[in-house]
Amino acid sequence: MGRLWLDAKTMRELGHQVVDAIAERLVRPWDATPIIAAASPDELAARLAEPAPEDGRPFDELLRRLDRDVLPFMTRNEHPGYFAYIPGSGTWPSALGDLIASGLNMDVGSWSLSAGPSELELVVLDWFKQWIGYPSHAAGVLTSGGSAANMTALACAREAVVGAMSDRLVVYCADHAHSSVARAARILGFRPDQLRVLPVDERYRMRPDALVHAMDADIRAGREPLFVAAVAGSTSTGAVDPLPEIAAICKERGVWLHVDGAYGAFAVLSERGRATLRGLELADSITLDPHKWLYQPFECGCLLVRQGHQLLNAFEIVPDYLRDAKTGVPREVNFADYGMQLSRTSHAIKVWLSVQYFGLAAFREAIDRCIDLAQHAEERIRRSDRLELVSPAALGIVCFRRRTDGSEDEAERTNAHLIRALSRGSIGFVSSTRLRGRFAVRLCVLNHTSRREDVDAVIDHFEHAAVDTRAAAPAPVVRHERDARIEEGWLGAPRVDPDVVRSLPLFAELDDRDVERVARIAREVRFPAGAAIVEQWEVGREFYAIVDGTARVFKDGKEIAEMGRGDYFGELAALEWGASFSYPRLATVLATTDVRALVLPGPFFNELVRDAPSVASRIRHTVRERMARA
Amino acid sequence: MGRLWLDAKTMRELGHQVVDAIAERLVRPWDATPIIAAASPDELAARLAEPAPEDGRPFDELLRRLDRDVLPFMTRNEHPGYFAYIPGSGTWPSALGDLIASGLNMDVGSWSLSAGPSELELVVLDWFKQWIGYPSHAAGVLTSGGSAANMTALACAREAVVGAMSDRLVVYCADHAHSSVARAARILGFRPDQLRVLPVDERYRMRPDALVHAMDADIRAGREPLFVAAVAGSTSTGAVDPLPEIAAICKERGVWLHVDGAYGAFAVLSERGRATLRGLELADSITLDPHKWLYQPFECGCLLVRQGHQLLNAFEIVPDYLRDAKTGVPREVNFADYGMQLSRTSHAIKVWLSVQYFGLAAFREAIDRCIDLAQHAEERIRRSDRLELVSPAALGIVCFRRRTDGSEDEAERTNAHLIRALSRGSIGFVSSTRLRGRFAVRLCVLNHTSRREDVDAVIDHFEHAAVDTRAAAPAPVVRHERDARIEEGWLGAPRVDPDVVRSLPLFAELDDRDVERVARIAREVRFPAGAAIVEQWEVGREFYAIVDGTARVFKDGKEIAEMGRGDYFGELAALEWGASFSYPRLATVLATTDVRALVLPGPFFNELVRDAPSVASRIRHTVRERMARA
Repeated sequence: MGRLWLDAKTMRELGHQVVDAIAERLVRPWDATPIIAAASPDELAARLAEPAPEDGRPFDELLRRLDRDVLPFMTRNEHPGYFAYIPGSGTWPSALGDLIASGLNMDVGSWSLSAGPSELELVVLDWFKQWIGYPSHAAGVLTSGGSAANMTALACAREAVVGAMSDRLVVYCADHAHSSVARAARILGFRPDQLRVLPVDERYRMRPDALVHAMDADIRAGREPLFVAAVAGSTSTGAVDPLPEIAAICKERGVWLHVDGAYGAFAVLSERGRATLRGLELADSITLDPHKWLYQPFECGCLLVRQGHQLLNAFEIVPDYLRDAKTGVPREVNFADYGMQLSRTSHAIKVWLSVQYFGLAAFREAIDRCIDLAQHAEERIRRSDRLELVSPAALGIVCFRRRTDGSEDEAERTNAHLIRALSRGSIGFVSSTRLRGRFAVRLCVLNHTSRREDVDAVIDHFEHAAVDTRAAAPAPVVRHERDARIEEGWLGAPRVDPDVVRSLPLFAELDDRDVERVARIAREVRFPAGAAIVEQWEVGREFYAIVDGTARVFKDGKEIAEMGRGDYFGELAALEWGASFSYPRLATVLATTDVRALVLPGPFFNELVRDAPSVASRIRHTVRERMARA
Repeated sequence: MGRLWLDAKTMRELGHQVVDAIAERLVRPWDATPIIAAASPDELAARLAEPAPEDGRPFDELLRRLDRDVLPFMTRNEHPGYFAYIPGSGTWPSALGDLIASGLNMDVGSWSLSAGPSELELVVLDWFKQWIGYPSHAAGVLTSGGSAANMTALACAREAVVGAMSDRLVVYCADHAHSSVARAARILGFRPDQLRVLPVDERYRMRPDALVHAMDADIRAGREPLFVAAVAGSTSTGAVDPLPEIAAICKERGVWLHVDGAYGAFAVLSERGRATLRGLELADSITLDPHKWLYQPFECGCLLVRQGHQLLNAFEIVPDYLRDAKTGVPREVNFADYGMQLSRTSHAIKVWLSVQYFGLAAFREAIDRCIDLAQHAEERIRRSDRLELVSPAALGIVCFRRRTDGSEDEAERTNAHLIRALSRGSIGFVSSTRLRGRFAVRLCVLNHTSRREDVDAVIDHFEHAAVDTRAAAPAPVVRHERDARIEEGWLGAPRVDPDVVRSLPLFAELDDRDVERVARIAREVRFPAGAAIVEQWEVGREFYAIVDGTARVFKDGKEIAEMGRGDYFGELAALEWGASFSYPRLATVLATTDVRALVLPGPFFNELVRDAPSVASRIRHTVRERMARA
């Protein structure tokens, strides 16, 4: 036997050392260390960078190094005041489930090699199906997380509906969709004009009317609506889309409805959550992440597909060297045929072990408490003169901010400062988001360790902490290298006069170098009176600034604004929402006189907004205004 | 604190129980239980299927249930006689690394939340870069395995070279490529004519001449070669492609060279392995799986990209709710921007802990011993009158079979029987593959537990075990539902006379139902004398059977065969290699007289080969013959 094998006594010794060290660390008093300890790349490289040693080192020395050089420099995810992003608090029996999977090196790809762990995964998936209200012929697969589940869903839908990729397919999501939806679409080969980002309603939910308009515009243009990614618990606000309405729209048009419930879906285990998530069971596929609201440690995501055979059809592949592992016997599930992985560990064992050990009632209780605590936070915010509710409690998320007298920029500086000040201590930790372009503090209650006093302490901080805005400098502007080639400009296009650029208020504060760039890259275009410059629900990425003439803006056939020299439009469609995708046109603009306009291509416009603070500040202001009525 | 939280004493108790149970199980004598215990879905459902309990259950009872109902029904991956597929034997310190990651719920997505674990991942990636000979500006990311790494590589190349998806892009791989390459291409939106499967040389390596021909044919046709997936240690034979030659071809044409070293790349840690893998460092990207030859438990894969910034450019995405987590400070690596996952556990900690504990020398020794043992197996096979070497030892893999006097079908039955007989005992476990259509026993030495006597015992079995071929029934034919719509036939195409179908030897043994299907779906097509029916390196999926007339077959301009009534061609391009992809035409066929032929679309031809044993047997025979000279 080689040197990498250990006898049982040594295994036990090392194992007990690790168990004891983790247990000791997990019960350290919450107020002893900050939730986050930052460290620079140089500092950590000095601690850890070194070539792999030829000779081994004592195990306890290695554990001490981890304790000193690695573990202090990560957030304490299980902290009861951790309300940032989507918190993750696992359970100890789940972690031990991971140890069993690793120690015995489980590989749950095929029934023939791994019948026991495969059945365990089926059992866990059956639980999820029951909880959601899915039929027994649904199928599923555990994944590394929500990103993989959303990608698997989109790939499955494409295979089930059309087979190989086609240019005509279109994917729809609202602007509150998780970034993984855009990333998945991009990776799966959808081009910039094949995903529509839609505006949300006043409660930050997908608007069924916008979905219908966008789909019908695409159908008229000869495109093929394929897939709608709705959300059950959006990352920013916890909003749940109107699932029954959206399901009806999709059914009528033969479009695949996917619901991303990565964050919210397990709330079906509580009564209030189930009511909020009404219609979830109508989806063709659902993402749900046990490593979020089912209290599993990273990694554990899940995809369920209503017509189970569609998942198999999309991913099955049988090369020569795997023929032995495939028995072809019905009901012997080979999980490698249900997703993107071939070798795959057992994520099921941790779910099974923790649910069996604590009982489901304990999970229901934990979920219910999070919903309670978010409502409690909302009530406190509503009662406070100093705080403003930005979005009400939805599932476990509430968004708010300290009121300021000043501008939107002032509000952002103040609240960003309060967030940073909180994160330096050991009371709690929250993150921020932007809702219709407005900066908001975002509090997400998810940990089973969080108590009422933890929420109160954080709200107290935002109510009462002093703000020294001199210390709250704006974040440095980072120049990206991306899209650099766009600077080369369009061959043959006549160059715009730099003075014309400078004459527009939007560009008035640009330095000479940036004015030159705009002049080099912009086109000057003329539209005759009566022409539609852009049309609502169409696809286009250009940004327009009016140099001469007037235009009227129509939304759903109703005039909402008039524009003239110096005004601009198209910024929502031009701004990249993610992975090259963006909104379609949300209004129609008609030239009422002859119009002369500067037209900037979307990628360059994005670059300018990133690089030029004066442009960014005006555009942010416009986005806030226009998103509020979108 | 909620009920899902445990005190330190309980954590320690449960943890020690699990550690002790795994240690006990891992050192159970190898001969006490079979390597595989099979169980039917019904049997396991009876043991495990049940709704989630509302109330919790005692932990020791749950461990007993796992021990009784789950763990016996999986292969013992760490068994020293486990030579099937790609074996996986982890180390115990690695498993404890997984426990640390799970217990502390590490999420290594952003530097700001997880600087320590991020630096640990950078350190481990630096080790890999050093071992491979990659430059310091290379970047990488740990993944769930080779499938994810290959998919990430292809997505990264597309973003780096062209940005959004285009129909004109072409991917190349040889037929020994891992199935995950085809699956990745399909998922990423490459259509059936956008991946070329190329034939291999007599040592099962990619042929540089075939690659050049295929690329140049595509360039002439206005397509754009994007990506070559070469292999460093193919799954079937361990073959390493001629990397320096392929790198030169790719460089000349500006094509991205990816090397899939999931199985083989860590052999660079041994001197012989490094020599075999010469040129690996020339690749634009490399997949390497620590959960294979670096002895990590599942899951742990890795992708390295030579120009590191290309990986970041391909995957970075910054939604509003994540802005706080992005500092924009250079060198603060946010690993969520380097691949497809947002939440991601630490796979680095297990690599770090095991390499530090044992020292690199112990890993080099284990890898070297595997190479030794594969060579030892080859020598024994060469010395034996009863065994035939099918492919020589390459890295840790050797393919062979028991000699039989009979047909190829007889050889397959005999060797499949010997494999099954072996798997029922506790001596060892191997799997099979097909090389140029010939069935072969495949032995892959990878476990650090394997010794010379384990290899000898398995070779002894194939030399001496009795074969009762009556017991060795052929595998049952499984009917797939896939591609069912193709049966609907082509609207308006005249139906072929069933008697014409029956008159061809290939279809002579079909039953009436299948003859009807062929007649309904086939087209009858006429080619004038002198016409090229198919041309070498072109793309097409149709299968041709000659009803009347003669044709000549040319390969690289040289005539290699003449065909007449009843002969057929196109089967290699028609057969699906994986995920809808297949070979291009490997020969040109010219009509020497007027030719009348039945033409079957590829998907239907695949279905027929699956469903009709008489057709399958003839086609398999033809494939063996023609692949031998491809």
